[in-house]
Amino acid sequence: MTDYSTNMRLRMPVVCIVLEVILIILFGVLVEYNEDTDAKKWNKNNKTDDMKNEFYYRYPSFQDVHVMIFIGFGFLMTFLQRYGFSSVGFNFLIAAFSLQWATLMQGFFHGMHHGKIHVGVESMINADFCTGSVLISFGAVLGKTSPVQMLIMAIFEVTLFAVNEFILLSILGARDAGGSMTIHTFGAYFGLMVTRVLYRPALNKSKHRNCSVYHSDLFAMIGTIYLWMFWPSFNSAITALGDAQHRTALNTYYSLAACTLATYGFSALVNHEGKLDMVHIQNAALAGGVAVGTAGEMMLTPFGSMIVGFLAGTISVLGYKYLSPVLESKLKIQDTCGVHNLHGMPGVLGAVVGSITAAAASSSVYGNGMADVFPDITKDYTASNQAVMQIISLAVTLGMALLGGLIVGFILKLPIYGAPPDTLCFEDSIYWEVPGEEEGHEEMTTVKLPEESDKLNG
Amino acid sequence: MTDYSTNMRLRMPVVCIVLEVILIILFGVLVEYNEDTDAKKWNKNNKTDDMKNEFYYRYPSFQDVHVMIFIGFGFLMTFLQRYGFSSVGFNFLIAAFSLQWATLMQGFFHGMHHGKIHVGVESMINADFCTGSVLISFGAVLGKTSPVQMLIMAIFEVTLFAVNEFILLSILGARDAGGSMTIHTFGAYFGLMVTRVLYRPALNKSKHRNCSVYHSDLFAMIGTIYLWMFWPSFNSAITALGDAQHRTALNTYYSLAACTLATYGFSALVNHEGKLDMVHIQNAALAGGVAVGTAGEMMLTPFGSMIVGFLAGTISVLGYKYLSPVLESKLKIQDTCGVHNLHGMPGVLGAVVGSITAAAASSSVYGNGMADVFPDITKDYTASNQAVMQIISLAVTLGMALLGGLIVGFILKLPIYGAPPDTLCFEDSIYWEVPGEEEGHEEMTTVKLPEESDKLNG
Amino acid sequence: MTDYSTNMRLRMPVVCIVLEVILIILFGVLVEYNEDTDAKKWNKNNKTDDMKNEFYYRYPSFQDVHVMIFIGFGFLMTFLQRYGFSSVGFNFLIAAFSLQWATLMQGFFHGMHHGKIHVGVESMINADFCTGSVLISFGAVLGKTSPVQMLIMAIFEVTLFAVNEFILLSILGARDAGGSMTIHTFGAYFGLMVTRVLYRPALNKSKHRNCSVYHSDLFAMIGTIYLWMFWPSFNSAITALGDAQHRTALNTYYSLAACTLATYGFSALVNHEGKLDMVHIQNAALAGGVAVGTAGEMMLTPFGSMIVGFLAGTISVLGYKYLSPVLESKLKIQDTCGVHNLHGMPGVLGAVVGSITAAAASSSVYGNGMADVFPDITKDYTASNQAVMQIISLAVTLGMALLGGLIVGFILKLPIYGAPPDTLCFEDSIYWEVPGEEEGHEEMTTVKLPEESDKLNG
Repeated sequence: MTDYSTNMRLRMPVVCIVLEVILIILFGVLVEYNEDTDAKKWNKNNKTDDMKNEFYYRYPSFQDVHVMIFIGFGFLMTFLQRYGFSSVGFNFLIAAFSLQWATLMQGFFHGMHHGKIHVGVESMINADFCTGSVLISFGAVLGKTSPVQMLIMAIFEVTLFAVNEFILLSILGARDAGGSMTIHTFGAYFGLMVTRVLYRPALNKSKHRNCSVYHSDLFAMIGTIYLWMFWPSFNSAITALGDAQHRTALNTYYSLAACTLATYGFSALVNHEGKLDMVHIQNAALAGGVAVGTAGEMMLTPFGSMIVGFLAGTISVLGYKYLSPVLESKLKIQDTCGVHNLHGMPGVLGAVVGSITAAAASSSVYGNGMADVFPDITKDYTASNQAVMQIISLAVTLGMALLGGLIVGFILKLPIYGAPPDTLCFEDSIYWEVPGEEEGHEEMTTVKLPEESDKLNG
Repeated sequence: MTDYSTNMRLRMPVVCIVLEVILIILFGVLVEYNEDTDAKKWNKNNKTDDMKNEFYYRYPSFQDVHVMIFIGFGFLMTFLQRYGFSSVGFNFLIAAFSLQWATLMQGFFHGMHHGKIHVGVESMINADFCTGSVLISFGAVLGKTSPVQMLIMAIFEVTLFAVNEFILLSILGARDAGGSMTIHTFGAYFGLMVTRVLYRPALNKSKHRNCSVYHSDLFAMIGTIYLWMFWPSFNSAITALGDAQHRTALNTYYSLAACTLATYGFSALVNHEGKLDMVHIQNAALAGGVAVGTAGEMMLTPFGSMIVGFLAGTISVLGYKYLSPVLESKLKIQDTCGVHNLHGMPGVLGAVVGSITAAAASSSVYGNGMADVFPDITKDYTASNQAVMQIISLAVTLGMALLGGLIVGFILKLPIYGAPPDTLCFEDSIYWEVPGEEEGHEEMTTVKLPEESDKLNG
Repeated sequence: MTDYSTNMRLRMPVVCIVLEVILIILFGVLVEYNEDTDAKKWNKNNKTDDMKNEFYYRYPSFQDVHVMIFIGFGFLMTFLQRYGFSSVGFNFLIAAFSLQWATLMQGFFHGMHHGKIHVGVESMINADFCTGSVLISFGAVLGKTSPVQMLIMAIFEVTLFAVNEFILLSILGARDAGGSMTIHTFGAYFGLMVTRVLYRPALNKSKHRNCSVYHSDLFAMIGTIYLWMFWPSFNSAITALGDAQHRTALNTYYSLAACTLATYGFSALVNHEGKLDMVHIQNAALAGGVAVGTAGEMMLTPFGSMIVGFLAGTISVLGYKYLSPVLESKLKIQDTCGVHNLHGMPGVLGAVVGSITAAAASSSVYGNGMADVFPDITKDYTASNQAVMQIISLAVTLGMALLGGLIVGFILKLPIYGAPPDTLCFEDSIYWEVPGEEEGHEEMTTVKLPEESDKLNG
């Protein structure tokens, strides 16, 4: 590949602008305000209590989720020493596209209203959730793909996400409020399959750049801590109002706390000098949130949540230490951020925990709250039925993710997207105007005084 | 100018302490709790439902706005390599002063209660809004002014802001919930006129410092992303409760998403190598929030919001690339942060969009919700009347901003505020004790063990 | 001490894993959902209004507090040039442990329900508060202690915190919603006593590392600004709903704004060149939040709040400049973060202000709101009685903190925790795998490709 092949001057504008124009047209045709956001519908009887608008009960959670998507995922990936602009910048681009596309895809599958998709705070949360799944896959291929490639991936992945979510929630009747299956398992295995198909045998030519520096690890910790803090909001954002939302946040909080202690303990244990590894702290400490994504809204109890969190942190650290090297050397899966350890295995654990917890559901524990958590469980449809559906849902998700990732991987392999050569992976400067690092450098780009470079260009 | 001229040892304490003492006295005389914050008034009939306190319906939005003002604006300006302390630190100082002064000025103009200004969460939001306007102007003069100069500017700008806001909202009956006119247009053109008056012909002596380094651009992205994420809260913070607040957040969310794709597309298009420019990503991607500041609460539809966002991102990138160099070379406007592209043009666009959207208002679209969005529109006062008032408001705002900026610019030109010499613009060390950059430097300030430097000083 | 003595390979896993297992068992035995989080209890009569769940009125405040604990405290301490991983990383570890342990200890003292501790959003906030106190003490010993030492300290400090809180709130009937006494005074003097006992005469061997660099000060400002912005949520998080919560947020907002101007003024005044000191800005500007922790919920008025904030900022700057060096040289108190200036003195000021404000309470000011703020004040129990109890509470807190710190300090002095030698204080690399700082360094740790080091280790 030559330097020219990564030139985005035409590819990027064409893709971004064409996609956005298509989105705008589709929104014009298909999207309208829902009952809670439309001036006429909301005020139709002049007696509506404005304080009961769903906005007040979902929007703070939405904003927490929003921070996780844009700051959390964006900065988590800035650990690479020369890929900070791309990490946070492409995360931003992909997310801004995905949330629009997801609104359409999810709206289409989750029920049209007289041919229209209704939007409000719930659709905003769901769109951000779907976006999260795409960003998980982005973590697997980070540094080895062009932004255009990622936008193409997002088009397909969002679509498949919506199909899978529809099968799980609407057809199989599975429960997955925090998305252990729909978001984490799906996003991780989809991304892992894509990175497998895009395998680069000569990636070690960029090995010296595939690592962190001191400050980049601190930037990444901003992402980690925000994800950790707001995960209770993530898992509870679209549960039933009342006790269910409250309980989900509480369970997630305890799971994450227990996960953190497991992470620190095992990170020191697996290092021959007993030193902590930032990779573990930045990632494994979050596995507790993933692993209660399904069961968080159930009567898991703080006790159960902590056990799940502890297990999740443990398998995640061990995965980074022992499994990732094997996946790379034997299965040729180059997983830049280790999403298999943070989202893959903990997501599967979360699905299994959800199934087990569903199997244990009984009216003596849930009382009248059963309908909020398990609306399908009745005399005829037992907790065991629900548990089976949860496990089938996991299998469907894995199948959809792996098959989808395979196909999309081959689509992304076409040499037309401006992917970086093996020698220039994990490098911002092929896609960005990058300033120097120190004061007084001659080659530093004077970003705020562009007139001179214009003369040269013009 | 000599080094001595920038010494703040007397200027800074005198201005800060005298201003704060005056504020405290004025608050003692003029300010009291409103109905929702006063123990006696709120509980007067012993039957009030505490959960209906306005706090619960405005405070989450307030905190999002607060983050935008202090983290968003503060870190957005840290892109300069040697001006990070000043960017975030003076932003902090100016904002802390302005919100107090704005509480008094806005309270004075927005209606006294028996000679008292009533405060609560709404006054907090309004004060933060006014502060935002001052910080926009700060962006235009960033690096070329002393903190004392900025405090003096804030005194005048907050006052003029309150007058302009009063004329627009109370006299002309304009709608501007998110402040396309009152905040962005006003702040931008005020700041541009100030920087015009303070024109420095020899500013290129500091040119090598007027640029970013790799890490400073990442710090700036923290500011960008927070502004982007919380802009829906900003535009909706003081709208009517219920559908109006919900709809405003939704419209802003879509406008920003569309704006982001336009920004990436055009940023690559205008670069001869197709590389993205961090200046565009950090700034132009936010223009979509500015441009729906007026129309966001109206029935703009997601479709309309996305068109506006797309246009805003486009003109903002083109402005950075083609207009800013001309403004500097021809009109002698040295606009450090490019506020004309982020707040000026998108603010004017927002005002125009607001007028057009108001003109299209009809009861068939708004139903009983009309009174929340356009309380003035009745049989006698048509949507067209409203649209005219919106445009007149834009003209008034531009006039107030330019004239105010002209006068205040000359006041700030007095050589008494310790402004930096041309050779030391964009440089923290004239106002801050600055530590070294690398470990082991001899000249590094040992910040936590001050006894030795005390001996030298004492 | 040899390098071996700081090896955490056994200590860290044993302590983290054993503690977490104990926590899980105790949670299994003792903890259950409260009325608002239990599916059966909340829905027992099928008529509960889900929108009245306490979640919606406390959770946004909880998340703000959560951000203060993990981002605020964590990044505030990253100012040290070579201790950023430990600052944010050990803050994370200690907080994740403390919030679990605090749930048990506070639950035990604050009232068991049939032998069970009930948890929900209020217990989450209280646990985060207790954690805050531990992190304040952490600030005093920062850089001179091992993570295991800090976990041991947390075990004892959380326990003593819960005892002290029980005495103050339940026995003495003191009011302290924002924790001027229970959190700040207790945490600061406990930590100061611990660091006194752990006095290192030869700490100047690490002096060159006990300072900031340019970028580390910017990271620290992230912590500062988040603490500053969300302090209104902190002080109001567990007040009575309605006017009390609203008023507390408002009072804290004004106190902090006034404090900030005092901080900038005095910081410039005490520097012989009139330059601002980042240490003051990062810390003293927050003292206004500490100092209205007790009186914030009372009818302090904005005027009173601003006076308190102004005083707090002033004494805090003066403390950093003139008192800290004396404490170190005369009293042998090595207070890394200056917690005496940020939490100690402002906490005592807050307690005194709370007592004075309580003494001034009257039904003509509070009306029916008296019961929310001062439930004990009746005909027989006057405002003066309340004021006396507030002062006794301060004395109790100081006694508990100093005595507790003394005992715990000696426990922490045992040479078994892997504390760093005097030559390696303020240094991440003894506890962390630390990557290099610049691109291309040979010694850089390739963090994402661990297989090679595994071979060496295995």
